[in-house]
Amino acid sequence: MWDLPTPALILDLDAMTRNLDKMASHFAGKTAKLRPHAKTHKSPGIAAAQLKRGAAGICVAKLREAEMMIGAGITDILLTTGVVDPLRMRRLAALAGTCPGLQAVTDHAANVDLLASAAEAAKVKLRVLVDLNCGSNRTGVATGKAAVALAQHVARQPWLQFDGFQSFASHVTHIPGYDERRRADLEALDRVVGTRRLAEQAGLEVRSLSVGGTGTYDIDCDVEGVTDVQAGSYVFMDVMYRAVGGRNGPIFNDFEPALFILCTAISQPVKGEITVDAGYKASATDHQPPEPWGIGKVRYRWAGDEHGILTLDRPSRTIRIGDHVLMVAGHCDPTVNLYDSYWVCSGERVVGEWPITGRGMSQ
Amino acid sequence: MWDLPTPALILDLDAMTRNLDKMASHFAGKTAKLRPHAKTHKSPGIAAAQLKRGAAGICVAKLREAEMMIGAGITDILLTTGVVDPLRMRRLAALAGTCPGLQAVTDHAANVDLLASAAEAAKVKLRVLVDLNCGSNRTGVATGKAAVALAQHVARQPWLQFDGFQSFASHVTHIPGYDERRRADLEALDRVVGTRRLAEQAGLEVRSLSVGGTGTYDIDCDVEGVTDVQAGSYVFMDVMYRAVGGRNGPIFNDFEPALFILCTAISQPVKGEITVDAGYKASATDHQPPEPWGIGKVRYRWAGDEHGILTLDRPSRTIRIGDHVLMVAGHCDPTVNLYDSYWVCSGERVVGEWPITGRGMSQ
Repeated sequence: MWDLPTPALILDLDAMTRNLDKMASHFAGKTAKLRPHAKTHKSPGIAAAQLKRGAAGICVAKLREAEMMIGAGITDILLTTGVVDPLRMRRLAALAGTCPGLQAVTDHAANVDLLASAAEAAKVKLRVLVDLNCGSNRTGVATGKAAVALAQHVARQPWLQFDGFQSFASHVTHIPGYDERRRADLEALDRVVGTRRLAEQAGLEVRSLSVGGTGTYDIDCDVEGVTDVQAGSYVFMDVMYRAVGGRNGPIFNDFEPALFILCTAISQPVKGEITVDAGYKASATDHQPPEPWGIGKVRYRWAGDEHGILTLDRPSRTIRIGDHVLMVAGHCDPTVNLYDSYWVCSGERVVGEWPITGRGMSQ
Repeated sequence: MWDLPTPALILDLDAMTRNLDKMASHFAGKTAKLRPHAKTHKSPGIAAAQLKRGAAGICVAKLREAEMMIGAGITDILLTTGVVDPLRMRRLAALAGTCPGLQAVTDHAANVDLLASAAEAAKVKLRVLVDLNCGSNRTGVATGKAAVALAQHVARQPWLQFDGFQSFASHVTHIPGYDERRRADLEALDRVVGTRRLAEQAGLEVRSLSVGGTGTYDIDCDVEGVTDVQAGSYVFMDVMYRAVGGRNGPIFNDFEPALFILCTAISQPVKGEITVDAGYKASATDHQPPEPWGIGKVRYRWAGDEHGILTLDRPSRTIRIGDHVLMVAGHCDPTVNLYDSYWVCSGERVVGEWPITGRGMSQ
């Protein structure tokens, strides 16, 4: 590992495997199934490892990711973001023709009409979930009557199949403190499950109710009516999720950090600091910076496109120019999206280079 | 353009061409030459357009970018970041063997020794600039005597050729207000030019003194002793540079915005806002968010990996689901690094798809 050109994205295979196993055990025997979000890893190989452990299918965020995953042989996919333009709807319908396990989402009536036309033109029965706004105010139709009316509109289309509901509580997953997060999550899910009940009272069959994420996986999975839990980050973890706190303390450590940025110290113009070769292009910058790992009290800050600076508060070993430093990814999903491959390591040994096949597939 | 799958990176060819021409005119007849930083665009095609207009060569930030540019036929390259590990020094020396116009940098004596060994092993005369810390405290040896001693150490190595100095004032380029920026830049350059003078007094020949960036291009270029100005962002401009202010007002508009993110409105759960399909994976998040363009008073904020939200303060036209919105890139370099290609447009017409060949080449 220490010979890799840096900055390098390091995947700790043993830690990831333990994360995959732990999450699979958690869902073993539950009514709700895990449906991991593959927007995190963008890797058909990791998706296959999740499916092998009992996942009900996977989620992807974008049409190109769905095309890529289906091309790689994955057959049960929920596309969690709406497709709104006719050109891409044509691709979506064609894709559903090759992959009957594909589900799309919608959150407004005009979009349903366009989806129905695209499905009809392709002579494909397209499976659709209605996306609910459970408080994130980002996407989704309002829960309750409006959602049921939209679901009925989907169900009336001969070329669409109403499959159920999706709702992602993006405003909840990173609430600090387990109890507060749990309270907010149950409140959001109450609206969602209530909508499911209303739809059933209106005579609709609701096969899927897909919700949740890593921050609430152990809350979502026990809510009656939930069928799928869309956790993604648990595979890798990151500084951002560790900081939200867990059931047992200020660090959310149900899963282990498995994704690291390996960087090299390259210059030391100032005492007590050292400059490394990883900047904005080497780690996501939307939330917390990466966190130096296994090296005592050392902090990282960004210092431009190509540079970062370590503050050497109390390092456990001397860091000299040319030395390597491992850092836990600050926010895993957009960090993965910067790299073309994972360097897969077992301990300090490189055991593989896995392509990040979906990198850049944001369309 | 409106049929492209979004989020798409749009390069306004006409605006970029005007930027290239304007900068070339600015440098015409000056002693100092433009040496554009290609870490911004990562495109050999754009580098060639810069060289055709009289640039002295280009800069790159990383060894892989240098390898890529040399592979694409560019022959005059300054690698602005130090190479510190022996494995990559071997590649650097081999590269210098194929490209005599390659310059490397160094900022400490042990590194000089390693570079000298690598050059000797490759039987290559390696050209080296000494990197100076003019106040950024990021990389570089201290200006003055320490720098001259290091330069002499380089000059003493039989397989190294001391070419001069580099200094990038990263703490200056984005200072708001032209006058304050000018004052800070001249102060930083004073230390750099003083070091040049000291080195010459010590009998060293200083062929190159490479400094500066887009924010100070018209200050750097007239400082006696400066040979190269490393402007990069002027090609595209971005919200971050526009905000620093120019010679004539609060917007730095010597160059035009030429780099845009095209996104699509996909959902509207809240009145007065609309959600678009561009989030953390579609634009750099280290500084300002992208800025909706040509559409009246509309603000963008990030809303997750795959989403953004527009606040519709006073749009000049109604924005409905399915509509496209152009946004000026917030920070151009790391935004470019997210995409595999530029969609090159003239007006609203797509005239090309140019690969971002150096994308992800941060090593």
